Amino acid sequence: MSKDKYVLAGDVGGTNLRIAAVDSAGGILHLSESATPASGNAGDVIAAIVAGGRQCIDHIDGPTPIAFGLALPALVNSNSGTVLSSPNLPQLNRTKLAADVAAALSLKTVLENDATAAAIGEYWLGSTKTVQNSVFVTLGTGVGGGLILDGKPYRGVDGTAGEIGHICVVPDGLPCGCGSYGCVEQYASARAITRIANELQSRIFYESSKQVFDAAANGDEIATEAFRRMGNHLGVALAALVNVLNPELIAIGGGAAGGWEFFIDQITATIRNHAFAPPAERVRIVRATLGGAAGILGAARLAFDSVS
Amino acid sequence: MSKDKYVLAGDVGGTNLRIAAVDSAGGILHLSESATPASGNAGDVIAAIVAGGRQCIDHIDGPTPIAFGLALPALVNSNSGTVLSSPNLPQLNRTKLAADVAAALSLKTVLENDATAAAIGEYWLGSTKTVQNSVFVTLGTGVGGGLILDGKPYRGVDGTAGEIGHICVVPDGLPCGCGSYGCVEQYASARAITRIANELQSRIFYESSKQVFDAAANGDEIATEAFRRMGNHLGVALAALVNVLNPELIAIGGGAAGGWEFFIDQITATIRNHAFAPPAERVRIVRATLGGAAGILGAARLAFDSVS
Repeated sequence: MSKDKYVLAGDVGGTNLRIAAVDSAGGILHLSESATPASGNAGDVIAAIVAGGRQCIDHIDGPTPIAFGLALPALVNSNSGTVLSSPNLPQLNRTKLAADVAAALSLKTVLENDATAAAIGEYWLGSTKTVQNSVFVTLGTGVGGGLILDGKPYRGVDGTAGEIGHICVVPDGLPCGCGSYGCVEQYASARAITRIANELQSRIFYESSKQVFDAAANGDEIATEAFRRMGNHLGVALAALVNVLNPELIAIGGGAAGGWEFFIDQITATIRNHAFAPPAERVRIVRATLGGAAGILGAARLAFDSVS
Repeated sequence: MSKDKYVLAGDVGGTNLRIAAVDSAGGILHLSESATPASGNAGDVIAAIVAGGRQCIDHIDGPTPIAFGLALPALVNSNSGTVLSSPNLPQLNRTKLAADVAAALSLKTVLENDATAAAIGEYWLGSTKTVQNSVFVTLGTGVGGGLILDGKPYRGVDGTAGEIGHICVVPDGLPCGCGSYGCVEQYASARAITRIANELQSRIFYESSKQVFDAAANGDEIATEAFRRMGNHLGVALAALVNVLNPELIAIGGGAAGGWEFFIDQITATIRNHAFAPPAERVRIVRATLGGAAGILGAARLAFDSVS
């Protein structure tokens, strides 16, 4: 594919903002990274996105990009290009972000939820390539997910499909920020792993899931048990997904996926115990392969598709 | 549409077998009903299906049907027309049912899982018409489901998608025939309602969910409480579906849907308590409208589509 054609793609997080120039093979031609403006003003975030885009265009110093795709930690309306609800970037709520960025750069701009974008990225270039029905699960501060069904991203009626972090795995369990109780996000996120390890003993106070991981890697039984419990709770949620969707593949990414070796056996066992046998035997659970680049590459893919 | 074009459609149950001639508007031109042969011999079931089809053709006494669609309580491979696993009609396991029926009647024949067929029927002519993303739930001896996503039936990689009866709603709960524990089928089927009512008291022994329904209709508090508990457990499973699929509509059918007035408020409340707020507020829960005809009409629709 010609290097002449490229898109801009962005991953707008609550803390960091990354904008890249991406070619049609998924090659990152240039990457601009900055802190997401903390002013609480939507205009500042939009200006930072536009500035990142301009930096990429200047760096390429030749052809102009053909479209711009943006992944956001938000419920977005892809059709209208508006941000509906963004708990981590509330200043963007109800903004016509796509239109504003498009006007500033004279460039067609599309929006996508970040977990769905990551699922698209993994489907284009990563762990779920060639698989028509897959679930991408991200284990970070929270637990998120994106779906590829019959070869296409599935978003549901309002774009919230794949919100697997709020599947209830412990009836009357811990309260969740969403207002419900017992959501898997409270038992399988990076934060949850840390909390579970601390609940299991009082000898050490873990401050991060990385510390729990290091302890498990050194053979610490408490830390290992924390990952096993996390795997069991995540397995209950994934068993529901397996029953509902009969996916060929579930890919697990995000920072806490680093603890893979300490939770995968439990996840597999719990799915076999809690899902209908034929789909439980069929599904393969794998690690996502694109790491932090999945969202930006998915946004790039959407940008290419928006003009094709 | 011309009355000249019609299809055969069948609903092959563990007990009863119905074959109909259906026109392209969903009108049932003739219906043949018989008991499903209990010999345990696949050939007898196939012969009964073929005989039902011949009876319809003879009754129409003019043009011949253009295709034959069959709904089965089984995991089927729609592409190859084979029955993979049929717990209620095990004699059909691994038979090339579509090819056998097609050869006997010289008629293109397609197979579908009965819950998916019912979802297609409701989408064609019933409660989910005009809705692009919906879930059909059937409450009978078991709990089943079928999905319409982005305007098309979604079957998953092996055709088991929508197996919502085996979503775990009570960790370490009652054993299920599937080998797991705490499946919603053990708490929300017609059989479960009867059991729950009997567990709640020893004054009366209920023998059917119909008796529990009649008692609830007469204001009996125990019977009412049995339906409320059933609604709570079903609500937990539907909340998972709401999080994963962000559907616009969930339609509930099957015999136990007759208890609607005694469980719907609890289902709605449980979904609001246990699902992420935006999709929980969006989804509407309605009664399916086609009753026992949903499966046969879905099979008819598939037959028409198979030759269009």
